[in-house]
Amino acid sequence: MLDRQVRVTFEPYGRAVFVLPETSILEAAGRAGLVIDTPCGGIGTCGKCRVRVIHGACQPTEADRQMFGEDELRDGWRLACKTAVCGEAIVRVPETSLFASTHQILKAATTEAATEILPAVRKVYVELVAPTLADSAADLRRLEQRTGAFKTDLALLRRLPGLLRQNDFKGTAVLSDHRLIDFEPGDTTSQCYGMAFDIGTTTMVGSLLNLHTGEELALAARMNPQVQYGDDVLSRIKHADSCSDCLDDLRRVVIAGITQMIDEMRAQANIQRDHVYTVALAGNTTMEHLLCGIDTTPLGQVPFVPAHARGLWIHAEDMEIPINRRGMAYIFPVIGGFVGGDTVAGILATRLGAQFGPTLMVDLGTNGEIVLANEEQIWAASTAAGPAFEGARISCGMRATLGAIEKVAFDGDVRCGVLGNGRPTGLCGSALIDVVAELLKHGMVSTEGRMLPAEELPSALPVALKERVRRNDNGMIHFLLADGKHDGTDCPVVLTQRDVRELQLACGAIRAGIRILLKNAGLQTTDLRSVMIAGGFGSFIRRSNAQQIGLLPADVDHRRVHYVGNVSLAGAKWTVLSTEARIRAEEVAEQTRLVQLSMDPDFQEEFAEAMIFPSNRSQDDATYASNVVLADDTLTSTKKEM
Amino acid sequence: MLDRQVRVTFEPYGRAVFVLPETSILEAAGRAGLVIDTPCGGIGTCGKCRVRVIHGACQPTEADRQMFGEDELRDGWRLACKTAVCGEAIVRVPETSLFASTHQILKAATTEAATEILPAVRKVYVELVAPTLADSAADLRRLEQRTGAFKTDLALLRRLPGLLRQNDFKGTAVLSDHRLIDFEPGDTTSQCYGMAFDIGTTTMVGSLLNLHTGEELALAARMNPQVQYGDDVLSRIKHADSCSDCLDDLRRVVIAGITQMIDEMRAQANIQRDHVYTVALAGNTTMEHLLCGIDTTPLGQVPFVPAHARGLWIHAEDMEIPINRRGMAYIFPVIGGFVGGDTVAGILATRLGAQFGPTLMVDLGTNGEIVLANEEQIWAASTAAGPAFEGARISCGMRATLGAIEKVAFDGDVRCGVLGNGRPTGLCGSALIDVVAELLKHGMVSTEGRMLPAEELPSALPVALKERVRRNDNGMIHFLLADGKHDGTDCPVVLTQRDVRELQLACGAIRAGIRILLKNAGLQTTDLRSVMIAGGFGSFIRRSNAQQIGLLPADVDHRRVHYVGNVSLAGAKWTVLSTEARIRAEEVAEQTRLVQLSMDPDFQEEFAEAMIFPSNRSQDDATYASNVVLADDTLTSTKKEM
Repeated sequence: MLDRQVRVTFEPYGRAVFVLPETSILEAAGRAGLVIDTPCGGIGTCGKCRVRVIHGACQPTEADRQMFGEDELRDGWRLACKTAVCGEAIVRVPETSLFASTHQILKAATTEAATEILPAVRKVYVELVAPTLADSAADLRRLEQRTGAFKTDLALLRRLPGLLRQNDFKGTAVLSDHRLIDFEPGDTTSQCYGMAFDIGTTTMVGSLLNLHTGEELALAARMNPQVQYGDDVLSRIKHADSCSDCLDDLRRVVIAGITQMIDEMRAQANIQRDHVYTVALAGNTTMEHLLCGIDTTPLGQVPFVPAHARGLWIHAEDMEIPINRRGMAYIFPVIGGFVGGDTVAGILATRLGAQFGPTLMVDLGTNGEIVLANEEQIWAASTAAGPAFEGARISCGMRATLGAIEKVAFDGDVRCGVLGNGRPTGLCGSALIDVVAELLKHGMVSTEGRMLPAEELPSALPVALKERVRRNDNGMIHFLLADGKHDGTDCPVVLTQRDVRELQLACGAIRAGIRILLKNAGLQTTDLRSVMIAGGFGSFIRRSNAQQIGLLPADVDHRRVHYVGNVSLAGAKWTVLSTEARIRAEEVAEQTRLVQLSMDPDFQEEFAEAMIFPSNRSQDDATYASNVVLADDTLTSTKKEM
Repeated sequence: MLDRQVRVTFEPYGRAVFVLPETSILEAAGRAGLVIDTPCGGIGTCGKCRVRVIHGACQPTEADRQMFGEDELRDGWRLACKTAVCGEAIVRVPETSLFASTHQILKAATTEAATEILPAVRKVYVELVAPTLADSAADLRRLEQRTGAFKTDLALLRRLPGLLRQNDFKGTAVLSDHRLIDFEPGDTTSQCYGMAFDIGTTTMVGSLLNLHTGEELALAARMNPQVQYGDDVLSRIKHADSCSDCLDDLRRVVIAGITQMIDEMRAQANIQRDHVYTVALAGNTTMEHLLCGIDTTPLGQVPFVPAHARGLWIHAEDMEIPINRRGMAYIFPVIGGFVGGDTVAGILATRLGAQFGPTLMVDLGTNGEIVLANEEQIWAASTAAGPAFEGARISCGMRATLGAIEKVAFDGDVRCGVLGNGRPTGLCGSALIDVVAELLKHGMVSTEGRMLPAEELPSALPVALKERVRRNDNGMIHFLLADGKHDGTDCPVVLTQRDVRELQLACGAIRAGIRILLKNAGLQTTDLRSVMIAGGFGSFIRRSNAQQIGLLPADVDHRRVHYVGNVSLAGAKWTVLSTEARIRAEEVAEQTRLVQLSMDPDFQEEFAEAMIFPSNRSQDDATYASNVVLADDTLTSTKKEM
């Protein structure tokens, strides 16, 4: 049963996703691109994430009972963070529960932007006057008198005389950017669709849009099938280089995955292939090269040069993407070898350059991309953060799937939240951040990242926590999180010294990147009006813990830290709905300054400094709390220590 | 031996053609696109067609001996009209022997226009600075910094990173209209070629051009292989409609023929396929549709509507034309269903709209297209002249090939010129005009086109001529031209009453067309500053005889009648050499007014009138003479008679 995904539909947005039972509504919503606000960090205390399950509500949890009255519970009110999906469900999400700017972005990309819907694809229903000797203008000219001038391809031109005459010179002309791409019998103007995709190294998300209304009709998500060839971009590039067909293998599997999502979304909305006229695809530079089948060798070697910078507007058929055979694909422009189209789409969707005051965006995907913008300039950099946040290279690491510890708090002993509520099989990125933050707060890990042996632990530490500090046969210290089970075998879930080092490296890379970007812009962290956390993953980390371990600047009020969700998908959707947005995406890519962190003379020093965790602020504040406001001088004092 | 073609090269033009031995040098030159002037009509009396055979000269003919001294004969001087090819030969054509405006057109399309050579294809040799971390711009951008911005296709983009790096970032970028179509190792800027084709209903001619210098490097000509499916456009359209694959059959055979010409020209000039980047193809509307594989059904039915009017700029690969795989094909714009791209190319090449004073152009191909231009406007019409001038529908008709009577004169008896000088097997278009003109002059055919029986013939008529008027078993009168042989069997070559009717119809159609166009423009024939005869065929007719039978207006001084040769090919060549010319071709097609002759209220009457031959001017003038200046009032007096 656990393998059987169920459909959860979120209203009034009409978005549906398939998830495994036991997935939290919060997570399901995130997968649907709806970012529900969780100021408390998702521990069920703030009540901000209230939703109403109008069909398929499960038994209320303890947290639900504490938050809602009997009437409300009967009406289906639940806390999205505390309630899991137990079957097919329809969930109504109040606007107040959505993270504010997410709502704005979602609205902009869907309903609100309806007044701005000017897609490249245009359908014009025509009833032409049949030709006579006195008016024997060519077929194309006759049509152009109604649609304006266009180009077309030979295959369509070959059929056009017959199409026009079989249909008494009536039908719907389909134009894409002044190219005639189809001529359909009858009036099909209302059947005009496009799709947007965010192609991540790990996960892919797709959206089906009505180009007439701007409405989102279906969503689909799945793993990038290329993961079989390696977790991160460098291993994919290495694989592409390893044999003559390997690049094409990578291309074919990702296109096959996209094809499945297209079929799935078309089936959901009952739409025929020929009526999907355009797709937009945003991904990091390597993902975009691979899905186009472009040689990635130079992306794997210094100086990491992409083949193209401007976006590509190419025939979907050339990419073997199964939409209308003359449909077009837009591949997002890239900023550099490691700052790709997904970042461009994110900048586009968040209107980063147009925000009021300096804004930082951090995307915690497999690569950690950082973007800093003020009113005049946008700087972007990628860090070698690696896939630690996605569970890779962590001894018990795993993705945020069933059985993953996704949340850890210390309350005298260890409290774990497990996805699916069964026995844990490993820990995912958000839990990794939590546990290291807790260990730091409890003085069990030094600011240098050393796990303290039993004899060096603070004397006031609860015994239960002390007893979890162990040594393996080689004398290496680890921290026991849970007596896990894996494939029916006992298999403890632990955090090792090496895991702490991996997290230090990842955090250090991002923190150093942020510092270098700020330096480039002549700004301090305190100048930042807003910090945006992007990416599906970003929705589930605890901000205070992220600040605790130095992943995010500590001297930014956590109320200024926002989760913006999958902005890459949002940006891709904009370009499907509006040619203007496509032009803006090109401008964004053109104008954003790529900062090569490794070229910066201060980088090595910054990176070394950033590897040090911020100093442990308070051992008293050892409770699991998300709304801690960090002192403004935390970062400064950390610096003084070193 | 007769089947073995030999190469004749014409200097200083560097043009070569393969012809059968016994072909006259005049005809071989015509096939090579060089129109040699023959004011005497090619009977060896005016000496205007003098050429010097510098290699492979044959024995001088009687006419040569009368024209040249011994020294000249030894140096190879011959009359092009009287000397046949007897083997591989190189012939030097003095500029003075070429028909003046032909020379101008040829020069303009080749050497002279060299200052205007601005083809769509541009090659740029680049030596790029290899990327570094400090300069990690994308490959395309790096290249664009040298070439200017361009688009490209996915297939090339996939290979570009590898190509650049394998060649140390050096090589030749090939651009076509701001599209990158290739990147070649080394400096290949001098190897840049294009081809132009005139695709006639009966014959096809091709030219290979150096896009760097404008030089013509090779020529090829062959029958349109579609003739197996019918002689004229209507029979081709009918065949295309007769089965589901028939349209494609027609397309495939003509593309196969073009492919053979491409291979032949490439072999002649030793040029590789990848270095031919563009082709231009001009043909009548049906030919263009068929070679593109566009549905021709509407072209076969009133109101004869073409699919496209503007020219097509399409991928040669989509047409299966074997040049560089990203090379482009230009298909000429058309004016109407029966006034096609060949006429547009002719107007372009002759600068018809820019000529001084009203000018008429008549193309005597399988369709008879007529164009009239003054400084403000161009009018065009097509006539239902049919293929009579190409020998079709004439009882002993044949094309101007070996064994064809191509010239007839009466000198008391009948004198025939036979191609190849063997026994005649039939008569071609020019002979058809000659014999009917002679019969008219001798009072043997009435102005109504009736062949007079023996008893009605003028009493003064030489007996030899009288005896040639015979009746067949059905009592139908015919005129015996020669005791021909066909396939070893005796087979007399005759002209029948029905043949005279066919010629009447063809001449009448053209003459009526000319009159209607003149009426549209508010002009008289006497206003015409110039009459241009276009088409390969046009070079071999006797102007005075054409006027005698009313094919050309009689009241135009024959010195104003010019043979302009294959102007369709010349126009196609211009568009290969210059983007400007391509734009002008579009303007020509856009601005030329299509006159639907059958829609004109006067057409029926004009056609009926034009069917009547002009009155027999003089029975005294019964000698074979081409330089007769017709009285200015011939047409007027003809009209009075009717």
